[in-house]
Amino acid sequence: MSERLVVIGADAAGMSAASQARRRRGPEDLSIVAFERGRHTSYAACGIPYFIGGLIKPVERLVARSPEVFARSFAIDVHLRHQVEHIDLHRRTVLARDLDTGTEVVEPFDQLMVATGATPRRPPLPGADATGIFGVQTLDDAIALAQFMEAQSPTRAVIVGGGYIGLEMAEALLMRGLDVSLVDSGQEPMATLDPDMGSMVADALRDKGVTLHMTERAEGFTTRNGRVSAVAVAGEELPADLVILGLGVRPASGLAEAAGIATGPTGGIVVDRRMRTSADGVWSAGDCVENFHLVSRGPVALALGTHANKQGRVAGINLGGGYATFPGVLGTAISKICSVEVARTGLTEAQAGQAGFSHLAISVDSTTRAGYYPDTAPIRVKLVAERRTGVLLGAQIVGEEGAGKRIDVLACALASSMTVEELSGLDLSYAPPFAPVWDPVLIAARKAAEAVDSGGG
Amino acid sequence: MSERLVVIGADAAGMSAASQARRRRGPEDLSIVAFERGRHTSYAACGIPYFIGGLIKPVERLVARSPEVFARSFAIDVHLRHQVEHIDLHRRTVLARDLDTGTEVVEPFDQLMVATGATPRRPPLPGADATGIFGVQTLDDAIALAQFMEAQSPTRAVIVGGGYIGLEMAEALLMRGLDVSLVDSGQEPMATLDPDMGSMVADALRDKGVTLHMTERAEGFTTRNGRVSAVAVAGEELPADLVILGLGVRPASGLAEAAGIATGPTGGIVVDRRMRTSADGVWSAGDCVENFHLVSRGPVALALGTHANKQGRVAGINLGGGYATFPGVLGTAISKICSVEVARTGLTEAQAGQAGFSHLAISVDSTTRAGYYPDTAPIRVKLVAERRTGVLLGAQIVGEEGAGKRIDVLACALASSMTVEELSGLDLSYAPPFAPVWDPVLIAARKAAEAVDSGGG
Repeated sequence: MSERLVVIGADAAGMSAASQARRRRGPEDLSIVAFERGRHTSYAACGIPYFIGGLIKPVERLVARSPEVFARSFAIDVHLRHQVEHIDLHRRTVLARDLDTGTEVVEPFDQLMVATGATPRRPPLPGADATGIFGVQTLDDAIALAQFMEAQSPTRAVIVGGGYIGLEMAEALLMRGLDVSLVDSGQEPMATLDPDMGSMVADALRDKGVTLHMTERAEGFTTRNGRVSAVAVAGEELPADLVILGLGVRPASGLAEAAGIATGPTGGIVVDRRMRTSADGVWSAGDCVENFHLVSRGPVALALGTHANKQGRVAGINLGGGYATFPGVLGTAISKICSVEVARTGLTEAQAGQAGFSHLAISVDSTTRAGYYPDTAPIRVKLVAERRTGVLLGAQIVGEEGAGKRIDVLACALASSMTVEELSGLDLSYAPPFAPVWDPVLIAARKAAEAVDSGGG
Repeated sequence: MSERLVVIGADAAGMSAASQARRRRGPEDLSIVAFERGRHTSYAACGIPYFIGGLIKPVERLVARSPEVFARSFAIDVHLRHQVEHIDLHRRTVLARDLDTGTEVVEPFDQLMVATGATPRRPPLPGADATGIFGVQTLDDAIALAQFMEAQSPTRAVIVGGGYIGLEMAEALLMRGLDVSLVDSGQEPMATLDPDMGSMVADALRDKGVTLHMTERAEGFTTRNGRVSAVAVAGEELPADLVILGLGVRPASGLAEAAGIATGPTGGIVVDRRMRTSADGVWSAGDCVENFHLVSRGPVALALGTHANKQGRVAGINLGGGYATFPGVLGTAISKICSVEVARTGLTEAQAGQAGFSHLAISVDSTTRAGYYPDTAPIRVKLVAERRTGVLLGAQIVGEEGAGKRIDVLACALASSMTVEELSGLDLSYAPPFAPVWDPVLIAARKAAEAVDSGGG
């Protein structure tokens, strides 16, 4: 008998699931309808800073698949600008509202895919709705920002929040010739790094001309004729004709929670390794779910496009009748800010402490290529390991060209619960254009193993 | 009571061992004497092609530590141009000959470190000793080649042997403006890759202007006044005023073998994980030893600077009274030939068959960065996995900038005996400047896991 799949949210997670389900079940077996609040499907949100910076144009290059492609090649019916307002698990229907006409539609489902993504944190501050203040979460946000920049030619930008998106936007706006200031409540930018590594990022930002206002918070926005003109910070007014909010996101799980679907301590929807929620026939994936952290073995909320794609695929295979699992996350992340590459995986020192580990940490400075090879660049590798066992708990890298992607070796080692001693024995590749004869990862592992061996660190 | 350590061979393995031993035992406890046949200590042989290509100068930049540094900072007495001719295990002495004066010296030892390296294969062909025919194994070789190029300005080079060194020398000579031909007996260059991957390297070489003579062998050298003028290949004469021999090396284990120290089926000196030979108080490391291959679980000869450094360090720690082990090798290797990056680890299809595995192989073509990001480059990843278990057996990568170093993730996965399914679930880093949302390694792992699952491949 034919089944009906309804997908809420037609971006990475939702449409990966829909496509995979379609591959395994034809239209006669499974009808698929998707509701999307925005104007676009399946786009690369992570590409937004590069679109704003002018590296990528037109904006359509960020769209992997349009609704037309989904209709034509996948027989998937996407309704754009439709917000789902209610899930009725008993009647097995969703209620969606057309954001342009106000019309409501009730859609029945047998299987439901919840891919509602994340909600950006916005400060509840006076003036926060003024023209010139932008989030950069969705492609619609990005297009609005690009149009504003085109029409208004802003010259002074303040970025509120020094996470990945904030810093990538700082680079983008520098490339566009703006004066850029950054306001962040932490000691150093990049709260997902330990401060000693974050301070290297801060130095790099200052080098590139970004003015940092650390350990400070935006307290309000001064507006003039409805447009932002300054950001209030510690009693000071930072002039700004453009403000970017990069304060992070939280799982958009309210709709599911209201329907009685379980959410966890992080606020994300609880899923098992096959991406099943607590409700029968209801699946979830992407920024709205709670993840299992493979090192802390606890729940974590992490909004990353790569997880959304993988989890969506897993959900789609399973609801298409196959078998696939998503094993969990390590919090691996990488970013390029001007010439600086920043990467991390697993637990920081602070996170290791919170997770109850007795840990030690070591850092080494080396080069990305042989010391004598042209264009060799600095790299610092920091490792966190459990004190007695030497099991690797986390890693952070800050460096220049060629530094960042080395984090993947450490992610692989974490996934295998390798000790730093085992890590130090890995047969990693060496040739002068690629590494010193001792790869920086191996030097760091060796030092960490020595520290474990001596009981110190 | 004070002991005497004699080191035979003062390059990477020997001097790593000597330095580590010295760190743990002062000169009053351990005297250290090293004999070196050449004129240099502890140099980066892997850097030779870049010195010849003109990227690195002067040649001294390739020397990590000179004999003066060893004498001054380590109290290690290095005798250059001294060839050890005999080891007497009973009397515990070595006999060394001064290559310049012919004088012989007998040196007693308590501990002996054998780091005799490898011997390049030279074809037993007419004319092989002519001027203009060079190996590029030692720094002395490189200096002689550089002097020849300076004095004679050769314009047509033939490279005999298409392994890493041969191809890196092809790039170097192209950079110096020479016409370059390559003669190799295989179907494709890079015999350490499967032919389907090697053919990509062949295409790249042809693109750069190298003339390939595949499935052919050098049959002799035509000389004129003692200088090479052509290479005979399949009845044809390839004009050449410079010939580079890159036919590989074999372990230089003859001296040890003559003394009664055990060698294995590969011809290398047999060592345990602490780098102890079969003879009490005799250690060995580097190109002269036989390695344990972690995937095939059999012996293998592999001449690589990175192993020499690591093994030398392990030997030195142990003979200094500490504890360290060298776990074995995966045959990981990487090379850059003009813009093409080539890397491999573990077993090729052919090697997997030889090792008795029933295997499958898949290849995927992807890009090094997000498809929409500037300077994204092609990458092909090939994986070999055991047919029933899905355990990863090996990997090969050919691509452009940013492709090659991804091999390290696969080396880490091999060291953990990961399945391709587990590999496909790794939390690898993603941001548009570094990878597509599905890293090529993950796409390949996914396809391989699907092939394992379907029993095919």
